Amino acid sequence: MSERTLTAPLARGATIGILGGGQLGRMMAEAAHALGFKTHVYSDVADACAFDVADAHTHAPFRDEAALKVFAASCDVATFEFENVPDDTAAFLATHVPVAPSPRALAVAQDRLTEKNFIAGLGIATAPYVGVSNAADAEEAVTALGAPIVLKTRRMGYDGKGQAVAKTPFDAPAAFETLHSVPAIAEKFIEFEYEASVIAARGRDGSFAAYDPPKNEHENHILRRSTVPSPLSAAQVKDAVGITRRIAEALDYVGVLAVELFVAKDGALLVNEIAPRVHNSGHWTIEACATSQFEQHVRAVAGWPLGDTARRTDAVMENIIGSEVDAWLAKADEPGLHLYGKREARPGRKMGHITRLTPRRS
Amino acid sequence: MSERTLTAPLARGATIGILGGGQLGRMMAEAAHALGFKTHVYSDVADACAFDVADAHTHAPFRDEAALKVFAASCDVATFEFENVPDDTAAFLATHVPVAPSPRALAVAQDRLTEKNFIAGLGIATAPYVGVSNAADAEEAVTALGAPIVLKTRRMGYDGKGQAVAKTPFDAPAAFETLHSVPAIAEKFIEFEYEASVIAARGRDGSFAAYDPPKNEHENHILRRSTVPSPLSAAQVKDAVGITRRIAEALDYVGVLAVELFVAKDGALLVNEIAPRVHNSGHWTIEACATSQFEQHVRAVAGWPLGDTARRTDAVMENIIGSEVDAWLAKADEPGLHLYGKREARPGRKMGHITRLTPRRS
Repeated sequence: MSERTLTAPLARGATIGILGGGQLGRMMAEAAHALGFKTHVYSDVADACAFDVADAHTHAPFRDEAALKVFAASCDVATFEFENVPDDTAAFLATHVPVAPSPRALAVAQDRLTEKNFIAGLGIATAPYVGVSNAADAEEAVTALGAPIVLKTRRMGYDGKGQAVAKTPFDAPAAFETLHSVPAIAEKFIEFEYEASVIAARGRDGSFAAYDPPKNEHENHILRRSTVPSPLSAAQVKDAVGITRRIAEALDYVGVLAVELFVAKDGALLVNEIAPRVHNSGHWTIEACATSQFEQHVRAVAGWPLGDTARRTDAVMENIIGSEVDAWLAKADEPGLHLYGKREARPGRKMGHITRLTPRRS
Repeated sequence: MSERTLTAPLARGATIGILGGGQLGRMMAEAAHALGFKTHVYSDVADACAFDVADAHTHAPFRDEAALKVFAASCDVATFEFENVPDDTAAFLATHVPVAPSPRALAVAQDRLTEKNFIAGLGIATAPYVGVSNAADAEEAVTALGAPIVLKTRRMGYDGKGQAVAKTPFDAPAAFETLHSVPAIAEKFIEFEYEASVIAARGRDGSFAAYDPPKNEHENHILRRSTVPSPLSAAQVKDAVGITRRIAEALDYVGVLAVELFVAKDGALLVNEIAPRVHNSGHWTIEACATSQFEQHVRAVAGWPLGDTARRTDAVMENIIGSEVDAWLAKADEPGLHLYGKREARPGRKMGHITRLTPRRS
């Protein structure tokens, strides 16, 4: 069967299906509701926090074709808040309901080696990398790329999970084993100045709109803080947005996507990875822009015109992680607080965020 | 049984019960979710648009004590998006779960005569009025107040429903009959310059915060447009906010309340009515303020500190009424569009709104 496509903007009151049930899905559902749409969230997690706010939800494994069919039949269009949905799930779904972004975009983004090959194929700079299938490959990678290297599983990594560093060829096989010897990619460790990201959207009509790129700071591999404006020069912003646009166009992308960048000491921009979805480093757009990244994604997926991405203020977004949420009351008199309604405050779990605005300086 | 009270700020993930299931409840539920709360919406309307976004919903008559008990047991606190809940429903509910605003505030606001007596009792100016129980009262009211008068049912009026004008004593009995001869209030018709409203909140600790009052324009008795800033002078704004604060304090009010004002040609402020809830004329706070009226109401009800009400931009909010929603696509490229997800676009029904921002001039 061929993929379904959306031929007209979604009608009033149509239903948007969302695969994945975390905070990104929760905020996406809220944005959909504000535009009068209904939502149906599908997740394999029993108490997914997006279930609470959706019109309907399905708790089923991603490979449950019967459940996917029922889900597809209830939706006018389907999208993702989570890229690690199995390839064949997305492909199967797309034969039953229009899906955006496309299964192909998802397939490229969810495999780090495919992703890097795709980006390099567009002539866009990344950290030097090679594919790693076994311990011998890992050892050779250190020699080929130069130490140290970062080994990353090709699939299912997030927040630093599925990563290991090897400082010498001798270390590499053990590092590969800590990844349970699954197919991996080795990347040369980049001494970057800082990280930045571009959050942008591409509409069904090929229109494109980017937000001002934030600087991102991580702690323990988890995003701690995103700040706009970043220290990027106007020329670097233009480059970063241009890179993102080329990626979006090459994928015939529909929806919001994020491109994570390393900014090298010499000012060069290297693409680290792409996320085919709304992104944690774009949460500040809720308060600081006329159109949030969540509304923008809904607009793109629904075949609506994209909204205004102009930044009205400066902003700093900080994540509230794990047991930090226990101190929520201390932040309760501040505007811009978002809590995700998750029950258990497990270590490293994103429980909420706060966006602090200041007048625009530049 | 005595009324329950909330003794500490609501814990993370607590459930807020909302009586009434319209767009005000829908936007209130969304604000509650953004702060990590759960919501349970109770309405006597089968396809209430707030049901779609709530964690749980109950469709039952307001006088169904068994359903109210189950509802109360599921909530940590309950509130209203709709003041025309029967008195005894609110009182019954308050013996089972802390309720804010109080049943007394609701009782005062839902009876136009009680309301006017209460306001006049505070020494606050209103249009001259008298109670009307029968056709003879209506006739006398024209003589006593001076023609023309507006007859309004004491209860259940909104958007001009339950109102009739009498231009002479002779007209008055017929006008009273169009109201089905229910208990009413006669008010002298005021030739006002324009209408304004104060949206403010009072916290459980007695803290008070008001938004900048909008000017409100009606068409066919339905709010068409709210504009901030209004033409009110700084002294008038101070007066209007002071009036609102006195009303809130006299009611020991908790939550957001709205006070509708007539601004007379000589600049005098006359209270038209109070709404013990979030208000259509406060929707612009979603985009133009750090804390929306919906978040503010949730904060007050939850025992949280009130948020910042400063206005960051100028704003014009326009309602999308009845079949106007069919033209939604023409507005789809504008930010600030809100659709309520209502199925049927009946004449006079509020289907959505749009808030347009411009830089702050003053």
